[in-house]
Amino acid sequence: MNKDEALAQVKEKLTAHRYTHTLGVKETAISLAKQIGVDSEKAEWAAILHDYAKFRPKEEMKTIILGEGLDPDFISYGEELLHAPAGACLVRDELGISDADILRAIMWHTTGKKGMDGLEKVVFLADYIEPNRNFPGVNAVREEAEKDIDRAVILALSNTISFLLKKSQPVFPKTLEAYNDLIMTKHK
Amino acid sequence: MNKDEALAQVKEKLTAHRYTHTLGVKETAISLAKQIGVDSEKAEWAAILHDYAKFRPKEEMKTIILGEGLDPDFISYGEELLHAPAGACLVRDELGISDADILRAIMWHTTGKKGMDGLEKVVFLADYIEPNRNFPGVNAVREEAEKDIDRAVILALSNTISFLLKKSQPVFPKTLEAYNDLIMTKHK
Repeated sequence: MNKDEALAQVKEKLTAHRYTHTLGVKETAISLAKQIGVDSEKAEWAAILHDYAKFRPKEEMKTIILGEGLDPDFISYGEELLHAPAGACLVRDELGISDADILRAIMWHTTGKKGMDGLEKVVFLADYIEPNRNFPGVNAVREEAEKDIDRAVILALSNTISFLLKKSQPVFPKTLEAYNDLIMTKHK
Repeated sequence: MNKDEALAQVKEKLTAHRYTHTLGVKETAISLAKQIGVDSEKAEWAAILHDYAKFRPKEEMKTIILGEGLDPDFISYGEELLHAPAGACLVRDELGISDADILRAIMWHTTGKKGMDGLEKVVFLADYIEPNRNFPGVNAVREEAEKDIDRAVILALSNTISFLLKKSQPVFPKTLEAYNDLIMTKHK
């Protein structure tokens, strides 16, 4: 499968709005990858496929997550967390994507986790700041991303946690672990 | 040891400012305990002793925490977390306090934790809202405490986490666990 075929597969499964978002993530991920010396081919592949499972039935995604033995917190902390881990499994099984780096970047693109590698940071951040995104705080993260990817990821994680707290929603524990990990590394 | 003797012990070890705070926590804890049907004698004891270790040398407190096999996160997430677990050990060893409920309420009064019992909530909250406290958001927590202790604890935890995020400080993982636990229980 080449990238055009992958895009066609994704386009078929997403709304027009979400497909436009995916194209934005693709361009942003390529750019961020080049900025910090991460493999931009892998970044492009992960970005193209990151929302592959976005509109799958929730029950199907839950079954996949449990069946694969993934962190059950993906299921108990809000349904918007399902598509990233389920998507990683589905692009592997349905599209034959076998690159572990790409699959991991898809898996963690919504929540983040402790010890993110460069590719994981790039896809997480591209998803947050791609040009079609428009929500309070996004411009500050865009500005930070031009200077320091780690600080941009910290700010995005911090904004996400604060947003959930304000809405009295639960916070996925590994998202806090991602924040703490980067904050403590930066302060060392 | 009676309560007057305990207060004298505490007064000797605290600044005037911190002793005034302790008296405020004592009155607030008694009142909250009565409000939700928790043993107000235990609440009073825990409140009197909750800051016993506040001005101990940091190194002494770290040694106690490690020696007792307590969560090492108490040491790595900021020095202001040391006095609660170290204090629980010190009032047991130096003052002969053996009541496990009181010791636990002292242990978790700064951070909170998953599965807090009524006494732990009372002391955590009294420490946050006693009348001498004056910081942004404290009045909203006071108002909530009059209606629903759990919601007041959620709000205090949420404020604490938001405050740390804004300051780019690490967040003790069990504080998020306490928040998630209460949010998820409330929403069930």
